[in-house]
Parts: sequence; C-alpha cells; structure tokens
Amino acid sequence: MAITIRDLALALDARAWGDVDLSVTGAAEPQAAGPVGPQGGVIALAMASKYAETLRPGSMAILAEGMDPQAFGLKAAIFAPRPRLLMAGLTRAFDPGPGIAAGIHPAAVIDASARIGPGAAIAPFAVIGPDVRIGENARIGPHVSVGRGTVLGDDVLLHAGVRIAHGVTAGHRLIVQPGAVIGGDGFSFVTPEESGIEEIRRTLGRRDGIRQQHWTRIHSLGGVEIGDDVEIGANATIDRGTIRATRIGNGTKIDNLVMLAHNVVVGDDCLLCSQVGIAGSSRVGNRVVLAGQVGVNDNIEIGDDVIAGGASKIFTRVPSGRVILGNPAVKMETQMEIQKATRRLPRVAQQLAKLQETVTRLLEKG
Amino acid sequence: MAITIRDLALALDARAWGDVDLSVTGAAEPQAAGPVGPQGGVIALAMASKYAETLRPGSMAILAEGMDPQAFGLKAAIFAPRPRLLMAGLTRAFDPGPGIAAGIHPAAVIDASARIGPGAAIAPFAVIGPDVRIGENARIGPHVSVGRGTVLGDDVLLHAGVRIAHGVTAGHRLIVQPGAVIGGDGFSFVTPEESGIEEIRRTLGRRDGIRQQHWTRIHSLGGVEIGDDVEIGANATIDRGTIRATRIGNGTKIDNLVMLAHNVVVGDDCLLCSQVGIAGSSRVGNRVVLAGQVGVNDNIEIGDDVIAGGASKIFTRVPSGRVILGNPAVKMETQMEIQKATRRLPRVAQQLAKLQETVTRLLEKG
Amino acid sequence: MAITIRDLALALDARAWGDVDLSVTGAAEPQAAGPVGPQGGVIALAMASKYAETLRPGSMAILAEGMDPQAFGLKAAIFAPRPRLLMAGLTRAFDPGPGIAAGIHPAAVIDASARIGPGAAIAPFAVIGPDVRIGENARIGPHVSVGRGTVLGDDVLLHAGVRIAHGVTAGHRLIVQPGAVIGGDGFSFVTPEESGIEEIRRTLGRRDGIRQQHWTRIHSLGGVEIGDDVEIGANATIDRGTIRATRIGNGTKIDNLVMLAHNVVVGDDCLLCSQVGIAGSSRVGNRVVLAGQVGVNDNIEIGDDVIAGGASKIFTRVPSGRVILGNPAVKMETQMEIQKATRRLPRVAQQLAKLQETVTRLLEKG
Repeated sequence: MAITIRDLALALDARAWGDVDLSVTGAAEPQAAGPVGPQGGVIALAMASKYAETLRPGSMAILAEGMDPQAFGLKAAIFAPRPRLLMAGLTRAFDPGPGIAAGIHPAAVIDASARIGPGAAIAPFAVIGPDVRIGENARIGPHVSVGRGTVLGDDVLLHAGVRIAHGVTAGHRLIVQPGAVIGGDGFSFVTPEESGIEEIRRTLGRRDGIRQQHWTRIHSLGGVEIGDDVEIGANATIDRGTIRATRIGNGTKIDNLVMLAHNVVVGDDCLLCSQVGIAGSSRVGNRVVLAGQVGVNDNIEIGDDVIAGGASKIFTRVPSGRVILGNPAVKMETQMEIQKATRRLPRVAQQLAKLQETVTRLLEKG
Repeated sequence: MAITIRDLALALDARAWGDVDLSVTGAAEPQAAGPVGPQGGVIALAMASKYAETLRPGSMAILAEGMDPQAFGLKAAIFAPRPRLLMAGLTRAFDPGPGIAAGIHPAAVIDASARIGPGAAIAPFAVIGPDVRIGENARIGPHVSVGRGTVLGDDVLLHAGVRIAHGVTAGHRLIVQPGAVIGGDGFSFVTPEESGIEEIRRTLGRRDGIRQQHWTRIHSLGGVEIGDDVEIGANATIDRGTIRATRIGNGTKIDNLVMLAHNVVVGDDCLLCSQVGIAGSSRVGNRVVLAGQVGVNDNIEIGDDVIAGGASKIFTRVPSGRVILGNPAVKMETQMEIQKATRRLPRVAQQLAKLQETVTRLLEKG
Repeated sequence: MAITIRDLALALDARAWGDVDLSVTGAAEPQAAGPVGPQGGVIALAMASKYAETLRPGSMAILAEGMDPQAFGLKAAIFAPRPRLLMAGLTRAFDPGPGIAAGIHPAAVIDASARIGPGAAIAPFAVIGPDVRIGENARIGPHVSVGRGTVLGDDVLLHAGVRIAHGVTAGHRLIVQPGAVIGGDGFSFVTPEESGIEEIRRTLGRRDGIRQQHWTRIHSLGGVEIGDDVEIGANATIDRGTIRATRIGNGTKIDNLVMLAHNVVVGDDCLLCSQVGIAGSSRVGNRVVLAGQVGVNDNIEIGDDVIAGGASKIFTRVPSGRVILGNPAVKMETQMEIQKATRRLPRVAQQLAKLQETVTRLLEKG
C-alpha cells in the first residue's frame, strides 16, 4: 500500500504542501516516523503541537492548519482542517484488515440451502446454516457461525469466532468484532407463584412471603434486527427478543463486552461504549451516547441525544437532550454539585455539631 | 409447528373460548398477528390492556382473565390466569431452537474414550476430549469444546462456541449460551513477600512498604460442579476452584457476561443478572437475586433470599432475606433515604451556612 | 503424578516431617484428603487453624509453622513458611493442565509461511495465519486463531477459542484463557462536525447544538505489544492501538472480562481484576492493582503502585502509591469518612431542621 502525498491529500480532501510526489507507505507518531528517503516513507502525525515538537527535519507530516512546515524542515505536509476526521480517512487508507483469503475455504461448512453473494471471503471452519442469505463481498473469519434463516446485507465483516444465531437480520456494512454473540436467548424466567422480585416491586422493598421458588424459562421467539452501518464490539452480547425482535438502528456503534438484553430497542447513530449493560425491554433514542460501564434498568425509556457519563446507572426515564452522570444518574451539573457537597460532608457534620453547641450555650445564657 | 387452540389451552392449563379447532402456528404482538384465515394462524398476545386495545377483529388472542373476546371481535381466545407463567409454556411450544442437525457431524472431533449417550446432535467442529461422559439427547453446537474427563447429564444444550474445560461436572438439562467459558483457571497470584494488597488489608489503607513485586501463579486444581436445570449466559465465565470446586446449585440461572471467580459457591434457584461479578471464595445462598452489574467482594457470605438492586456493590456479609441497593450496598430503604438526603445536600449546606450567620449575629447581639 | 514428601518439600523449599518416603498424589481440603495408605495418597491443606481442626489421624498435611504434627496424629507433614506462596509451588506440581495432545493435529490449518518452534501441541481446528512466528513448546487449544504476522515467544499457552488478531507481538510464557480476544479494532469514531461529546467536554455539560450526526470510523493501524509472563483472562478483550500499539508490560496479570481500549498502556507486574475497564489512551504504571469492576476514564494517568478498591470509578489522574476507592474514586480514608458521613446524612438533615427551629425561637424571643 503506497500512495503519493498528492493523492492522499485528494483522498482526505485536504491541502498538500512540498514534494507532493513522495510516496506514503504508512502513518506513525513523529518519533517512529522520522526522516524519509528519496521515494518517501512513513508520514508523521503531528496535528497536536506536543507531537509537532518532536518532528525531525526531512520527514513528512500531517499538520494542523496554521503550522509552518518549513520551520520544522519538512519535505512534504498535508494540512488537516479537522484532525480527528482526517484520521478516519487516513487510517482507512492504510488498514490492511484481517486478511481473510478470497474465496470460500474448503474447511468451511456451508449448508446447501444458504445463498451467499459474489465476492465472499470465508475462512476455515466457518459454519453457515440452512436458509441463510448473505449479500455481496462478505468477509467471514475463522470459527464464525451463522444460524438458520439469518439474513445479512452486503459488505459484512464478521471477525473470528463471531456467533450469529438463527433468525437474525442485519443490513449492509455490518462489522462484528471477534467473539461477539448476536441472538443468544433472553434471560427471562418466571415463577408459578409471585416471585420475590415481583413482591418487592409491589411493596417497594418489603418481603413478607419468602418461600421456595423455581424458575420456569420463557423462550425467546423474537430475533434481532440490525440496521445498516452498525458495528458490534468484541465479546459483546445482543440477546434475541421474546416475541418481537431486539432492535439496533442504522449507524449505531457498540463497543466490547456490551450487553443488550431481550426486547431492547436502540435508535440510530448511538455510541454504546465498553461494558455498557441495558436490561430487558428498555428503549434508547437516536444519537444517544452511553460511556463505559453505564447501566440501564429494565423497561426504561431514554430520549434522543442523551449523553451519560462513565459508569452512570440509569434507573428512571431520561428526557431527550439531557446530559447525566452518577449512581443513580442525575443531570450532570446536579451530580457535580452533589459530589462537591459530598466531599465537604464530613466538615459539614462538624460545623453542625459546633453550631449545636453554640446554640445550646445561647439557650442556657438566654 | 401447528397446534389447535384446544390443545394449546390444554398444554398451557388454561381456558379456551371460541373456535377451538383453529390452528396456532406462532405468537406475536397484536399489530403483527392480525386477523387469521379459516385454518388459523398466528395468535396475538394481549394479556395487558394496552396490547388488547390494538387487537383487530377476526384475530385469535391470549387474554387476561376478565377480558371480553366478543367485544374485540375475536375468533378464538385463551385466558391466561398468570400471564408471565403462560408465556413460559407458550414460548416453549413455539421455540424452533438452534436447529442442530441430528447425529454426529463428520467434522466433529470426538476422542475415542469419550462416552456420549443416545440421541445426540453434534455440530461441525465440536471437539470432545478424552474420558468425557455426556448423557442422553445432548445438543452440541458448532465450535464447542469439552475438556478431558468432564461429565455432563442428560438433555444438555451447548450453543455455538461454548468452552467447557477439563474436570467439570454438570447435571441434567444444562443450557449454555454461545461463547460462555466454564472452568477457566482462577485469578490467583501471590508475591514472595507481603504484597501491597495484603499490606493495606492489614493497615486499612496505609502503604509503608512499596517495593518491587512479581506475581507467582497459584494453579487451579479444583473443577466446577453444576447442579440440574442450570442455565449460563452468553460469554459468561465460571472459573475453576483452587483446591475444591467452584459450585452452582440446582435451578440457578446465570445471565450474559457474568463472572464467577474461583471457589465461589452459589446456591439453588438463584438469578444472577447480566454483568454480575462475584470475587473469589464468596458464598451465595439459595433463591438469591442479583440484578445487573452487581459486584460482590471476595470472601463474602450472602444469605438465602437476598435481593440486590441494579449495580449494587456488596463489600460485607448480607443476612438472609435482606433487600439491598447502592455502593456500598445497604438496606434498600436506607439507601432510598440516603439518596433523598444526598439530592438535598447542596441545599443543606446552604441552610447550614445561613444558620451559622444567624447564630453569629445572635451572639454579637447577645 | 506422584512425588515423595521429601521431594515435594525440596521443590517447595520447605521443611518435611515424619515418613518422608510416602507418595503424594494430589492435594485437597482435610475432609476430602483423610488418612492415607501405606504408599501415601492425597495431602491435606491445613495451613489455617480452622482447617487443621478437621485433620484426621493417619493423614499427611501441609501445616503452618508452629503447628504440631504429632498432636494431629499425622504420618507426615510439610511446613509452609508463607502458606499462599507454598500454594503456588504445590498447585503447579499437581496441575494436569488442559491436556492438549502433543504434535500438530491434522485438522489444524496452519499457513505455509508460519514458523512454529519445536515442541508444539496444537489442537484440532486451530487456525494459524500467514507469517506468524511462534516460539518453542507452544500449547494451542481447539478453535484458536492467530492472525497474519503475529509474533509470540516461547512456552505460550493459548486455551480453547482464543482470538489473536494480526500484528500482535507477545513475549514468553504468555497464558491466555478461553475466549479472550487480543487485537480487536479500537472503538474510535468521529463526526464531520463537532459531536455532542466534544461539545459537552468544551462547555462542561451544556448542549446548544443538538443535530444529526453520523459516525465515521477511525481504523486501528497499531497492534498490541505484550511483555513476558503475562496472563489474560477468559473472554477479556484487548483492543489494538490506533497508530501506536496498545501495550501490556512484563508480569502483568489480567482477569476475565477485562477491557483494555485502544492505545492503553499498562506497566509491569500489575493485577487487573475481573470486569475492569480502561478507556482509550489511558496509562497505568507499574505494580498497580485494580480490583473487580474498576473503571478508568479515557486519557487518564495512573501512577505506579496505585491500589483501587472494588468498583472504583477513576475520572482523574492518580498519583503514585495512592490507595483509592469509590465513585468518583478518592483516597480510601477520605472515602471511608464520606461513607460514614453519608450514612448519617438523613440524621444530619433532621438535626439541622431542629436547630433551625430552635434558632428561630431564639430570634423571636430576642
């Protein structure tokens, strides 16, 4: 993979400077990039000034607008108007990908009734079940399994060891990282008599009727429906619905070890960061961002454009546009005040005790 | 799969109404079910009144006791005395399951010394180790591995990519969702000298002796012992014990991404919801419910019938029957009071400051 | 596996007592060990006095220094100067391991360009990609995949279903528990315009510009670099770096279901307990211990020798040597004071209200 500075700038919709015929073979931090040879080499990423300081003369670099390539002694440069956005194009250009060999490996087991579009690369020991339909240009890693009747769009990339159960549908450009499980059974059990959980929900915490209870399984007949342009992280788990499907909207990105329970509905363009857990039947709007380790109670509604800070625990409905934090999660500014007051709490208790003494003395005097 | 209204009602131990010879081929929410043809079709689930409102004339439905099928214009109905319980029977009746083909696939690798009961369905690329014993009617998905000497009962269902290590025993009707790991090594390390953790447990937080420390591994010789009727969720991990086995009692259900560390003992009929973590050597009683993201410290004892709310963090012993919440977890009603008081905390601080001023003025006046 | 008391004591660098020619075939708790025959048998672990009380005459035991083997009627004993350390040697001696058969199983798929050192044991359905290099005595379980160009040292043990992606390097004696994923893509996305997250970081929580936003992917070109003597737990996930590698130092141990995001750097000899999550680009020093369910915000620095208690949530830089707890994490002693004061909070509010009344009365009187 090599591309000239000129073509790379074009691809990135950015401005080039200097010897634009030099070849770029990769990107690295300035220390690892260094000066390049007469043909070119690795381009240094120096959009932040702390990185720019470590640039060495004779290198090629990507700079923020306003930086001076001549002052750094560069041979060539590309100017990034919005550095993180440029990173998207740049890293896409140089990503070699998982390298699944073209064609269907003879050690894959594909049911005769499965229909797979042209251009597929399927690795050894993949298992594709009956009546599966997969679009064009699928890349399917080793030890992937796809269950009966599942339907996937074009350009899907399923990394090693992904498990997609039966009756799942997903759109185009789905990416699933290694070990993720889509369509496991929901965790849904019922006792013949009222259970302890039902009791405390009714009594708000009081237990009168502790007794033996065995759990009977509610099976999951619903599948999972996934939109276009969704990504699901390593070892994440998305359970199937009970009657209707668990649903993930277009453009939503889900990180490693995230749990979506049965019947959960997540909207479009959300970011669910690592280790987030959303309990059964909760609904999340569009463009919602849940930071790492956020928990969402069951049967909760979270509006559009909500942002929840790291490790927030959400027990109640959240209106659209709200920024929340804490356990239990409240408005971020309220949480900040609570935290400040909590830190002062031991002092407040002392002040109160002292004031009580003073007032007691006043009373005695009066 | 089709069954008459009459037979379905019989199977569910419920009362039928209307044209009981109609066939039921599945269940759905009222919008997705709709009116049925002369032979029958999909039955609508309308046990809650908000769902019943969307019933269309000419459909079949499952109703709560007291609802009027004629008012909805239904062709047939089944009355559910306890709706969630009826869901168990109904979904079991219509669950097509993962569809593992009968017999042992030629691409499975089964050690010659393994003994597998009659009726097994074993998918491609399963690996069954030496001296394994598995009961009757096992269903084993693709990419499952079962280690040397492990013993499983009848009617087990191991979904795709389940990893059961050597020396594990489990009873009948075990269900393991995709990607779960049973019998990984415990996380147990020791330093030649006292470690920082041992120091702060002794000094309650003070560090005097910070020094180099390398971790030496304590191997896990114990296995995992699992009772009857246990279910383990997708990508959950159950570590083996150090000397004695890690144990899970009869009827206990474990959700996705749960972690049980070495030597943990969980009793009968517990529910451990998603992302729960229980640290080494802790003991959990019978009929305990831990909601999502609950954490349990190591070497803790949790009594029978305890219920812990979402994201509770349990650092100390919990007596039987208690309902707890929060970090650190305390009685739920205490936690509710603490939360209420915490929300008022910024105001309390203001009131205190004002009161201090008043008293100061009083003192000056006096 | 059988070893005389004499040789076992030598191996453990401990003192033997009694009939040192007896054979030890395993270790167990005193109840499960019991009296031994004339050749020997299972040795009882009785280093804690509560275990020693259950010793039966005629057995062999490992005792703490100062215990009297004659008083217990033992046939032989080994004295442990530091019991937990002795457990390391003892359990290593008797661990049968996962039992991967020697040699390369014919159902493994190994690319012709991969170079694997002598002494390898590779299980069925393992997949080793192009240009992989693995040192001597590798043990590789079923359904393991190792991606293109990855380099592993000597004596690695990869349990069933481990996924190592392309471009990963690791040192000697790496142990990876079942289902762990090393080198999944980082969770890194950017919007063409400023995103809601960027906005609230700038405004500290205020949202002015809610609008449509689609996420563009930043690909992960960096790999993962892992030192010597590292262990990684079941179903843990270690993401690859964006430009430079995600790094794990020598001797660091990582438990089940831990998440290390892209660009994270963890030092030497750390313990990261189960379900810990470390967000992108954070740096953790040497000998750091993070207890279960700890969360670390992105771009945070944690100094050497820090210890964080269970479920601590770390939002800001932590200086070296600090012991922290809570959400947000603060010094452990501060947290203890806060917790004490918080429990008293409802009472404090009552006292304040009463005092206000008193002062009001004083004012009226005055």
